[in-house]
Amino acid sequence: MSSPQRTIVVVGGLAAGPSAASKAARTDPHARVILLEQSDAISYGICELPYYVGGTVEADDLVVHTAESLKREKGVDVLLHHRVEEIRTGNRRLLVRDINAGKATEICYDRLILTTGATPRRLGLAGEESVNVFHIRSLDSAHQLRHFIDGMRPRTAVVIGAGFVGVEMAEALRERQIDVTLLERGEMPLPGMTPDARAAMRDVLVKNGVRFCGNESPVALTSQDGKRVTHVLTPGNTYGADVVVVAVGVVPNVALARQAGISIGRHGGILADQWQKTSAHNIYAAGDCCEVRNAVTNAWCYVPLATIASRAGWVAGTNAAGGRARFPGALRATAVKVFDHEAVRIGLSAEEAKLAGFMPITRTVTTPSRVGMMPGASKLTVTLIADRTSGRLLGGTLYGREGAVHRSHALAVALHQHLTVDAFRESDFAYAPTFSPLWDPLLVAANALSRELQSPGRP
Amino acid sequence: MSSPQRTIVVVGGLAAGPSAASKAARTDPHARVILLEQSDAISYGICELPYYVGGTVEADDLVVHTAESLKREKGVDVLLHHRVEEIRTGNRRLLVRDINAGKATEICYDRLILTTGATPRRLGLAGEESVNVFHIRSLDSAHQLRHFIDGMRPRTAVVIGAGFVGVEMAEALRERQIDVTLLERGEMPLPGMTPDARAAMRDVLVKNGVRFCGNESPVALTSQDGKRVTHVLTPGNTYGADVVVVAVGVVPNVALARQAGISIGRHGGILADQWQKTSAHNIYAAGDCCEVRNAVTNAWCYVPLATIASRAGWVAGTNAAGGRARFPGALRATAVKVFDHEAVRIGLSAEEAKLAGFMPITRTVTTPSRVGMMPGASKLTVTLIADRTSGRLLGGTLYGREGAVHRSHALAVALHQHLTVDAFRESDFAYAPTFSPLWDPLLVAANALSRELQSPGRP
Repeated sequence: MSSPQRTIVVVGGLAAGPSAASKAARTDPHARVILLEQSDAISYGICELPYYVGGTVEADDLVVHTAESLKREKGVDVLLHHRVEEIRTGNRRLLVRDINAGKATEICYDRLILTTGATPRRLGLAGEESVNVFHIRSLDSAHQLRHFIDGMRPRTAVVIGAGFVGVEMAEALRERQIDVTLLERGEMPLPGMTPDARAAMRDVLVKNGVRFCGNESPVALTSQDGKRVTHVLTPGNTYGADVVVVAVGVVPNVALARQAGISIGRHGGILADQWQKTSAHNIYAAGDCCEVRNAVTNAWCYVPLATIASRAGWVAGTNAAGGRARFPGALRATAVKVFDHEAVRIGLSAEEAKLAGFMPITRTVTTPSRVGMMPGASKLTVTLIADRTSGRLLGGTLYGREGAVHRSHALAVALHQHLTVDAFRESDFAYAPTFSPLWDPLLVAANALSRELQSPGRP
Repeated sequence: MSSPQRTIVVVGGLAAGPSAASKAARTDPHARVILLEQSDAISYGICELPYYVGGTVEADDLVVHTAESLKREKGVDVLLHHRVEEIRTGNRRLLVRDINAGKATEICYDRLILTTGATPRRLGLAGEESVNVFHIRSLDSAHQLRHFIDGMRPRTAVVIGAGFVGVEMAEALRERQIDVTLLERGEMPLPGMTPDARAAMRDVLVKNGVRFCGNESPVALTSQDGKRVTHVLTPGNTYGADVVVVAVGVVPNVALARQAGISIGRHGGILADQWQKTSAHNIYAAGDCCEVRNAVTNAWCYVPLATIASRAGWVAGTNAAGGRARFPGALRATAVKVFDHEAVRIGLSAEEAKLAGFMPITRTVTTPSRVGMMPGASKLTVTLIADRTSGRLLGGTLYGREGAVHRSHALAVALHQHLTVDAFRESDFAYAPTFSPLWDPLLVAANALSRELQSPGRP
């Protein structure tokens, strides 16, 4: 028996979209899968944009799929320059504008997957749309910044926001021999990591020529000619800038979903269940337009990361095409390279744990990354957080010159499984002197935390 | 209420011994803890011996604890040059010979911990005790080899046995500009890893100037002067050698335990339970003299690794001193550096899984170690093994230029928890382009294995 051909339409072509479309086509080879993208490019490495700006990689390297390759390799029909203007849930149609032709048509869907992504958050200051102010989020904006640097040879830059994108952009601009000032409204860069990790990464930034200024929130952008920003003003200071990069987060694109009456969460993202289904019939959603469940707390959170977008897209595509897959929740696992260092956080921070109703206790150890005498050994700092009541592992932060990020994968498995510290520390890790001390830093930290858990009287 | 002072005696000072003694003294600060060692050194980095032979590290670097520092820092009384000749379980006494003084005395114990270690397996060939044939297991033997190399400047070496110690020794000798031939009775080096990992590591050895000869078992050692071996003979070939290193495994030292009537397992090691208690009252054991339970199968196995010795020593020391700790089983997790590559195996191999009654299925993926375009990206190969019936993850092998060993820690957690492949692959791993592809190689392998598990018809 052959069922009638199903039409699955995916709206948005960056990370979750191509993942959803490919997986839908694979799950139901008879389905017609259409991907609509309003810009002229799909499926490029958004996480690699800082490295493109910095000159480490070239534009061609960024492309994962073109419209042609997604058709050829995955069987997905891609319509570029097509913007969805309205979802008509009643008769399952989309009002779609062909931007080049200027005309609107209707496209029917049996299943719809919204992967409309996110938009850089604006400062809301006059001058923010000047030619030398950049909000890096798309290939387009990265091209513009790179061409600006190549053509105008700016000598000074101000990066606003020291989350992981701001930090990566600061490093990229240093690679281009630009004097970089990094402004952060908090005291330290990389919110969400432990205080000592943040202080250590601040030191790494400074050591590598980034002028880091904490507790600074821009209140104005000034320009001489009305076109080009020359200074960033904060309540107490004025920072000269030939170029300004704004990296203060993103906001989910939910206008279409909202128009269709789909439930939106308190973080502003679409609420999709573990099957990535929205509140509307036959409509799925995935990626940076969505909130996700935290795998530790099960609470809704907003975690606009490519890993999560790709996985959620995969789940949405599977289910929209009649398969069955489940999104397991997110750990907010975030890794960042800071010059010659790496840092990673995963699960809950102590503050987040407290807010979620846990009684967090924390232990930090600093050990050699390899057996101390071995060439290449450096310091690795591991912080683990557990709940005093249950002994459950809740999260961790690792940083050092080497061996932080890959080690955090062991924590990922433990956090998804809600393991206690005592269960985690039983793990028999592979060892040789060039890779770690005899007791891996993760185990040293877990042992320290376990002792702390066994002495309830201590603060 | 104060209990009478307990005397805890530890026999053997290499890895498990100092761990057990330190932990015992920490667990019961009132106990008298005595460590007896027949040689003149305790607590040195046995895993670093190849790097000492190769000239990467110096002798002083190897020492973790001296008798003095173990006393000062851990409160353990160390008696060097003291050999235990008999355990008198009836009245809890040891007959101990002071080797320097030549006389025997009795030492009483309340708890005894046997950490008598292992001895290099002999080939059983005439000439094996010649001055230029080395069985590397102790600081002494490593000193002798290094001095032999420094003094005699050998030009050719034959290493017999291509397990991880043989491979490390071959690399160490290459570091000393010696022509190295590595003989292995199997076809490939590194038994226990997957066939393709073994072939790849063979290629790495060959590329770095090691002459690898598989399917070769020495049948004789010949010498011209009766003192110095000049050739290693196999059934079909003759290999000239200025120096010979034998690395064909170790056998547990259980003579004392056997004399005391303690149960010995079929692999020849002491059988200690999960509290590291032996079959004899008040006698614990840990380290390379013991068998351990495999954490995947729960079967006894012999895994003479420093990680396991240290952990088991810790458990024995805790329990002997009145605390409570459990040895969680071993994963046979083994990491090895092979020149500019790393390789690791953990859990069961496909063959071991079959023998243990599982229906193993295997998937191997080769992916970039980082996002392909990023500087430093190389190939990483991951093999995962699962049980078809239950979907349980059973083991894995990873190899490549970077990122193999630390990634295996995530498998360690999964294997201890008896996770299915589907549970493992839900893990949200931290990502940035310099550290891994968007989907980590472990997840790519797990996804491939999961698909395989879902298609029961396929071979």
